[in-house]
Amino acid sequence: MDERLLKQVVIPGTTKIVLLVMDGLGGLPRRETGKSELEEADIPTLDRIAREGACGLTVPVATGITPGSGPGHLALFGYDPIKYDIGRGVLEATGIDFDLTDNDVAARGNFCTVNTNGLITDRRAGRIATEKAATLIERLRDIRVPGVELFVEPVREHRFVLVVRGEGLSDRLSGTDPNREGLPPLPVRALEPEALETAAMVNHWVSEAQMRLAGEPQGNMVLVRGFAKVPALPSMKELFRLNAAAVAIYPMYRGLAKLVGMTALPAPASFADEIDTVARHWDGYDFFFVHFKGTDAAGEDGDFERKSRAAEQVDREIQRLLELKPDVLMIAGDHSTPAVLAAHSWHSVPFVLHGNWIRADLTEGFNERECMRGSLGTFPATEALPLALAHAGRLTKYGA
Amino acid sequence: MDERLLKQVVIPGTTKIVLLVMDGLGGLPRRETGKSELEEADIPTLDRIAREGACGLTVPVATGITPGSGPGHLALFGYDPIKYDIGRGVLEATGIDFDLTDNDVAARGNFCTVNTNGLITDRRAGRIATEKAATLIERLRDIRVPGVELFVEPVREHRFVLVVRGEGLSDRLSGTDPNREGLPPLPVRALEPEALETAAMVNHWVSEAQMRLAGEPQGNMVLVRGFAKVPALPSMKELFRLNAAAVAIYPMYRGLAKLVGMTALPAPASFADEIDTVARHWDGYDFFFVHFKGTDAAGEDGDFERKSRAAEQVDREIQRLLELKPDVLMIAGDHSTPAVLAAHSWHSVPFVLHGNWIRADLTEGFNERECMRGSLGTFPATEALPLALAHAGRLTKYGA
Repeated sequence: MDERLLKQVVIPGTTKIVLLVMDGLGGLPRRETGKSELEEADIPTLDRIAREGACGLTVPVATGITPGSGPGHLALFGYDPIKYDIGRGVLEATGIDFDLTDNDVAARGNFCTVNTNGLITDRRAGRIATEKAATLIERLRDIRVPGVELFVEPVREHRFVLVVRGEGLSDRLSGTDPNREGLPPLPVRALEPEALETAAMVNHWVSEAQMRLAGEPQGNMVLVRGFAKVPALPSMKELFRLNAAAVAIYPMYRGLAKLVGMTALPAPASFADEIDTVARHWDGYDFFFVHFKGTDAAGEDGDFERKSRAAEQVDREIQRLLELKPDVLMIAGDHSTPAVLAAHSWHSVPFVLHGNWIRADLTEGFNERECMRGSLGTFPATEALPLALAHAGRLTKYGA
Repeated sequence: MDERLLKQVVIPGTTKIVLLVMDGLGGLPRRETGKSELEEADIPTLDRIAREGACGLTVPVATGITPGSGPGHLALFGYDPIKYDIGRGVLEATGIDFDLTDNDVAARGNFCTVNTNGLITDRRAGRIATEKAATLIERLRDIRVPGVELFVEPVREHRFVLVVRGEGLSDRLSGTDPNREGLPPLPVRALEPEALETAAMVNHWVSEAQMRLAGEPQGNMVLVRGFAKVPALPSMKELFRLNAAAVAIYPMYRGLAKLVGMTALPAPASFADEIDTVARHWDGYDFFFVHFKGTDAAGEDGDFERKSRAAEQVDREIQRLLELKPDVLMIAGDHSTPAVLAAHSWHSVPFVLHGNWIRADLTEGFNERECMRGSLGTFPATEALPLALAHAGRLTKYGA
């Protein structure tokens, strides 16, 4: 929604809103049954919430666009994911709970293998084990580049995060991955004059890294890309007057939430734990983002039945969220991850809004086909939050 | 719609379009029956029009936004209600049939009561009777401020309109209402340097008013706010090549129509009268805006059954509108006013387009739930007029 319009109408309140994101929620039917993961799942409570609520299908970013986790979540938090771009480097750093400052440029790093001519033979260094990568990272940690502080942090397997911290750095830098084997790693190039110095620093670091990794059979070189600074996002407090908290098991989602000013509550160990965490902090916040990963993980693995089971896991616990009596409960997905595609997809995503002053609609269950009949239609995911604010009595009249 | 695009395709014509606005049309189900006001109403003709027409639900301003009457109508007239902002003062003046000029700054006024320390004890002066307010207004009418002409006009109870007329005035002024009792009225402040002189004039008027009201037990002071000039709206003639007429009982809606260049036809006394008025002027115009207030009034009063009856009142007369054989008839609402909320709301609004070249849809009646199944989907209210123009053969092909 237009931020200027929003500023005119948003008012403070004491009502409570819960956003449950079932990651990768949307699916597709499998040939054997003609039904989607949600249609095959036994989810009586979610079906009841859909019957009682106002349903629809969200378009995460734009028609036909397959979103990553960043844009998918930003949209549900009420932020235009095209206007607010979260770079890959920032997302990676966020995903390992690394607290970025405004002086940081973060990049996604890979160990790779090059031959004696310096040509890449394996862009992922044989996906070396996380433990092996950790020992290589130790060798990179004491590289010094004048004028900046450097951090190298392991992610998983061949992946790491490089953070360059200093005054006046620019993230307008090209990556070094040529995206093909048989070519040499590219030098980092400055994409604007202000980035020349930062580019030189990173190139210096890369050549130091190459020297320290020399002789390794796998992982004797690094590739860095996705240079990014923390985007300047207005907080949910500023934009929506919401005191928001995030409950997520995976650091990346806590990190995304922190980017919009949410408080990340202590990390729970299971979905049941997540709901306990919400209950324990119920009085402290007026917006709760609860993240459930199971649906996406199963979808990415192409495991149709496990995705149905993941939805059933949510169904078993959701009643306890309802018992907290949120004024508005939204159940949404950041994008679709159909098991038949084993990947994120561009398809719209089931959505239900539950609470007061709901216009009853024709939806009889919580799945893709039923949500098509919902009163909310197919709508941009960025409108979910304004809708929730309206139903929570937090938007006043526009115009006389 | 994009005004530049429209200019390229709009063509003159002799076809006729009728827009019937049932004010506050959209509703919500009541608990006792699970049905909305329209669903409970016996409206066979409206249901038939919905079956024959193309239906949908309009979003007046933006998802989650509760519109006032101004934005709600502007959108149906084809104007972006965020771009064209009608200030409270202008709307109030419009509502009492005061003809504003481009040199006027209008404000909403209240009588209030202050104690001997100048602190407000009652922001509405005990809602003094209209007759009493009229006598107070008489005392304010001969206040003179050098360089401008002043008008003070009664509205109802404690409310009045103040109009300052002169060259080079600005409406970028803050109001004097502190929005709380126990505080003194605020001085008018200039919100831009160009408004300094206007602010001084209004402050001068306020202190004169205070002297003339001194000693009144109720209404010994005034509050003024919502300073506004007439917005520069292109006329419907300019934008859409429509020679438009407005038929409304309440002055505010005639005033809104005049702001977009419609001719306000002589005020009728009932909805049946309104249709007679349209019939009498049928040959003189090619667009008729007909306003029906009953649905909104009942909704605002929280009177569910009266709102259903109001819809039935329209249903009884609507056949006579059809008999005039408009090329396109739209039945729409400027916003929802669910009786269960007793207020305007953000919910989308039933809409039907009736006429030639309609794509038949699945709608079987004129209400919120049936309109969800319409071929127009849930769409911005600003698109209603372009849709009507298209169906009336008044938009030519875009591009070769």
